[in-house]
Amino acid sequence: MVLEYEGTRYQGWQRQGNTPNTIQARLEETLGRILGQSVEVSGSGRTDAGAHASGQVASFHAETEMTAGAILKELRRYLPDDLGVLSLTDAAPRFHARLNAREKTYVYRVWNSEAPNVFERRCVFAQPEPLDLGRMRAAAADMVGTHDFMAFCSNKHMKKSTVRTISALEIVRLGDEVRFTFTGDGFLYNMVRILTGTLLEIGAGRREADCVPAIFASRSRENAGETAPARGLCLTEVRY
Amino acid sequence: MVLEYEGTRYQGWQRQGNTPNTIQARLEETLGRILGQSVEVSGSGRTDAGAHASGQVASFHAETEMTAGAILKELRRYLPDDLGVLSLTDAAPRFHARLNAREKTYVYRVWNSEAPNVFERRCVFAQPEPLDLGRMRAAAADMVGTHDFMAFCSNKHMKKSTVRTISALEIVRLGDEVRFTFTGDGFLYNMVRILTGTLLEIGAGRREADCVPAIFASRSRENAGETAPARGLCLTEVRY
Repeated sequence: MVLEYEGTRYQGWQRQGNTPNTIQARLEETLGRILGQSVEVSGSGRTDAGAHASGQVASFHAETEMTAGAILKELRRYLPDDLGVLSLTDAAPRFHARLNAREKTYVYRVWNSEAPNVFERRCVFAQPEPLDLGRMRAAAADMVGTHDFMAFCSNKHMKKSTVRTISALEIVRLGDEVRFTFTGDGFLYNMVRILTGTLLEIGAGRREADCVPAIFASRSRENAGETAPARGLCLTEVRY
Repeated sequence: MVLEYEGTRYQGWQRQGNTPNTIQARLEETLGRILGQSVEVSGSGRTDAGAHASGQVASFHAETEMTAGAILKELRRYLPDDLGVLSLTDAAPRFHARLNAREKTYVYRVWNSEAPNVFERRCVFAQPEPLDLGRMRAAAADMVGTHDFMAFCSNKHMKKSTVRTISALEIVRLGDEVRFTFTGDGFLYNMVRILTGTLLEIGAGRREADCVPAIFASRSRENAGETAPARGLCLTEVRY
């Protein structure tokens, strides 16, 4: 399945105990009723509470006579209007949305104006301070590549490797919007939001543009910038 | 003032008795508190309950030492996040947003796909039936010009003239969206929504493409199509 959701009223992707208000729980509950069996849905990765997706990919196994098209139609009938299934197709038996994911793209949208953005307010972070794109791009160049991103991870007790590769980090201005596009092989907990928060402090002149290598070397979360709010974050594509 | 609002939770533009939940009432209440005086806000026209605006224009008179910039800043601080002031400037003493309006543009957005549109769901009318743009454009050509639009007006007791001029009516497909853009010197109550509803019936093949002249001639609301839902409608520009 390719999924689109406005994460505003959800407590993130992952099912948590009896909290029904996560994307995963909502999908599992709805699919369970449609298929008459318990279904476990695997997402390409967890998205944070309040973060959005326009291209999340998820997979599940089910024994059923229903066609993919019929399941899609039923899902669209029963899912709430802030959680949409863009497509649903049969996958290879061993396909797994998380384990097989090769690369992901996240977009972080900053609304950089004193004027409000009424229609997109749930999907942008309003930050009216002037931003120097040249400074942010210089720092972004230091983030691209293979690094130990421990300092840009909110999970202090991360036992697995914190080495990841960012293959591209683009920063563009589109009118009053500044858009950050991150592509990489995987992202740690809050990593995109902490990288964005750090870049915003650099863009606003509150931090030097050459600070990134020292933050990497410290491996300490305190040396990086603030975690930018979830509302500006959107998982836009997963590649396999 | 140029205003942007998501009309979803409002009962339209016009103040009505003690109903606080109209755009006009919200603006008058907020300006009243900022300026310490009773303020009457005139909009270029009433927008329907649930309809949106990205370029509504409104004016008011006030005796104050505050600059336009200072009033703008206070308004942005106190207005809710679905009602934004894009700009506020001093006007000529006799300027009146409604009386001086020369031309308006409304956009009606139809989401023409089986797939949902999660992020824009509040601002589009989801209508998955295939639409024939050629047929709709042929009928739209008959709507352009100066006509008696009585049949396309929901107010049965309209005492004033129901003659209006539509100077342009464009229909374009943008991916899965079909967008109707109406420009004219003025629009009757529900007129854009009834014109759109009629065009949609023509596009879906439930009505002949050459039906418009007979509807005009009948001057009877029953002969026109359904009123398309307010959610798809947006006042985008007012010219003076």
